[in-house]
Amino acid sequence: MSTITKAACIGGGVIGAGWVARLVLNGIDVCIYDPDPEADRKVGEVLKGARRAYRKMLPDGLPKEGKITYAKTIADAVAGAQFIQESVPERLDLKHRVLAEIDTHAPPAAIIGSSTSGIKPTDMQPAMKKHPGRLVVGHPFNPVYLLPLVEIVGGEQTSAEAVEKARTLYASIGMKPVVIRKEIEAFVGDRLLEAMWREALWLIKDGICTVEELDDIMRYGFGLRWAQMGMFQIYRVAGGEAGMRHFMAQFGPCLSWPWTKLMDVPEFNDELVDLIATQSDEQSDRWSIRELEKIRDDNLVAIMEALGRQNKGKGWGAGELHNAYTKQLAKLAKPAKASVAAEKAKAEKPKKKKG
Amino acid sequence: MSTITKAACIGGGVIGAGWVARLVLNGIDVCIYDPDPEADRKVGEVLKGARRAYRKMLPDGLPKEGKITYAKTIADAVAGAQFIQESVPERLDLKHRVLAEIDTHAPPAAIIGSSTSGIKPTDMQPAMKKHPGRLVVGHPFNPVYLLPLVEIVGGEQTSAEAVEKARTLYASIGMKPVVIRKEIEAFVGDRLLEAMWREALWLIKDGICTVEELDDIMRYGFGLRWAQMGMFQIYRVAGGEAGMRHFMAQFGPCLSWPWTKLMDVPEFNDELVDLIATQSDEQSDRWSIRELEKIRDDNLVAIMEALGRQNKGKGWGAGELHNAYTKQLAKLAKPAKASVAAEKAKAEKPKKKKG
Repeated sequence: MSTITKAACIGGGVIGAGWVARLVLNGIDVCIYDPDPEADRKVGEVLKGARRAYRKMLPDGLPKEGKITYAKTIADAVAGAQFIQESVPERLDLKHRVLAEIDTHAPPAAIIGSSTSGIKPTDMQPAMKKHPGRLVVGHPFNPVYLLPLVEIVGGEQTSAEAVEKARTLYASIGMKPVVIRKEIEAFVGDRLLEAMWREALWLIKDGICTVEELDDIMRYGFGLRWAQMGMFQIYRVAGGEAGMRHFMAQFGPCLSWPWTKLMDVPEFNDELVDLIATQSDEQSDRWSIRELEKIRDDNLVAIMEALGRQNKGKGWGAGELHNAYTKQLAKLAKPAKASVAAEKAKAEKPKKKKG
Repeated sequence: MSTITKAACIGGGVIGAGWVARLVLNGIDVCIYDPDPEADRKVGEVLKGARRAYRKMLPDGLPKEGKITYAKTIADAVAGAQFIQESVPERLDLKHRVLAEIDTHAPPAAIIGSSTSGIKPTDMQPAMKKHPGRLVVGHPFNPVYLLPLVEIVGGEQTSAEAVEKARTLYASIGMKPVVIRKEIEAFVGDRLLEAMWREALWLIKDGICTVEELDDIMRYGFGLRWAQMGMFQIYRVAGGEAGMRHFMAQFGPCLSWPWTKLMDVPEFNDELVDLIATQSDEQSDRWSIRELEKIRDDNLVAIMEALGRQNKGKGWGAGELHNAYTKQLAKLAKPAKASVAAEKAKAEKPKKKKG
């Protein structure tokens, strides 16, 4: 069960709207601030997709949704919120302005999470004059309403209590919080993604493969492994009975072979953008983005369910968490249903007497 | 249906044995050469695991297995083979010796695939004095009997015909061949893996996270995405209706941010090996390697089946291929069963007459 009943989301883009969806589908009221006049429509579309995915997870019905309201100012949005998630664009000056505002007007006990993919909380805290200790990075992965991972990162001024509160809070809405031990730019997830992304750009730029071929290499190969075990556990198994030391001894030397171009950075110019965008169209423009979103979400639910059936039904990895989460949501849905039924019964009773 | 009936596997380690398993489970006879006196036992263990996984895929029964024989020399192993897969350790001098031997004794029409993870075929071909044109790299991913991906790479002397034959051959045993357009060291898959691996080593070395935390970040996060769509398609969706150009414009600049340590290489020393091996033990030593292998294989089958049920049962990505592969194997299993039944009926007929 969620540890909160009222949250605020500052920023309603793809990530912000994903948070809104996860929160309201857990029965939490959310007040949104986003200056975009189209915010309402955009959030509505993400929420539609999220509802669709949750219906697949919970065929017997969803919990009563939290209420969504829109505020005209950040001050109004955060008033009375127990938790505020900031998801504005990745510009430090903007983060500063927004966090200063949030800090001034939020209840002192409220936890503030930032969705930043890479800015260190220590660099954001100077803007918070009142209670910087309650700021954590809570870095989610798209789609936020389905992918369980959230990286929690504290800054120099963050209190241990705030990290613990954030961990409990994110876990209470079905997520897998991983607390990062030392603060660095881009944390862990995006450091790994960035390494991969750069190498991928080289491979496309040099004409070694197309974006579709590269994607196929991922999804017919190591992607299937990483949905269930990470890199280290998978390599441990590959090392065989001799284990991790053997694996390291065998593959360690590759580190000094010319197996990567990552010693420098590909120039990010129009030519590269054109090449990738054109190849991406060839790969995917037979589907609209909305269709691809549905496909992605259906696949995610199916993969997590499949992992949930493993280990004699106890589940493995994200599947074990998925089982616990859907169970929790089903429980949350039931009392609502039961009370509706009870009310109906009450309403019908006099009629029966009459009949 | 497989395009061949008789293959040779040179090298019976984890990868070589994985090839043996995939081949014999497709009904293909395999002759193995491996100087390791324990090769028989080791191959047997991999085969046991593979059979177990295929039984999950094919509850109604497996095709009749190909016959396994062991040869005392490479010459004996390749005699009469239509296809030879080389999976010896990654040392160029060894590859040269082995490929020279294979080339001398294999039937001229036989295709030769090398399992190398990174050596360019052009660098291996000089050892082949007779028919270097039929050498391709056929780089698989562990476990070979389950993961569909195989990267096909031709060298300067490789004929277009050999590449096409190899593509058809690998596809005929349920694999997803991706032909790499230009020959580079480590091809595509291992370039990406190496980029990720280096960054991961930095993160562990610097104490940002443990191997278990890093693995969790993968399997509760982007690993779930990459089992179904690759990096480019996933980012296209994340870019929203504005598409890939928008995504590139938004995230391109990160390339010059300090989001990665990959500008140099972590020193590969005993300290790093110890750190990683110790953390890996903490993460995984509650399971034996054999247990982890079973868990991994069960999960892989479950994920591919889950993807196979998508798209109104047509399947998505590896799931679509999985549907076709299991169908093909089931068909291969049936005639065997049917003929057994027919033989039984024949054998029983006279008895009936007597009775």
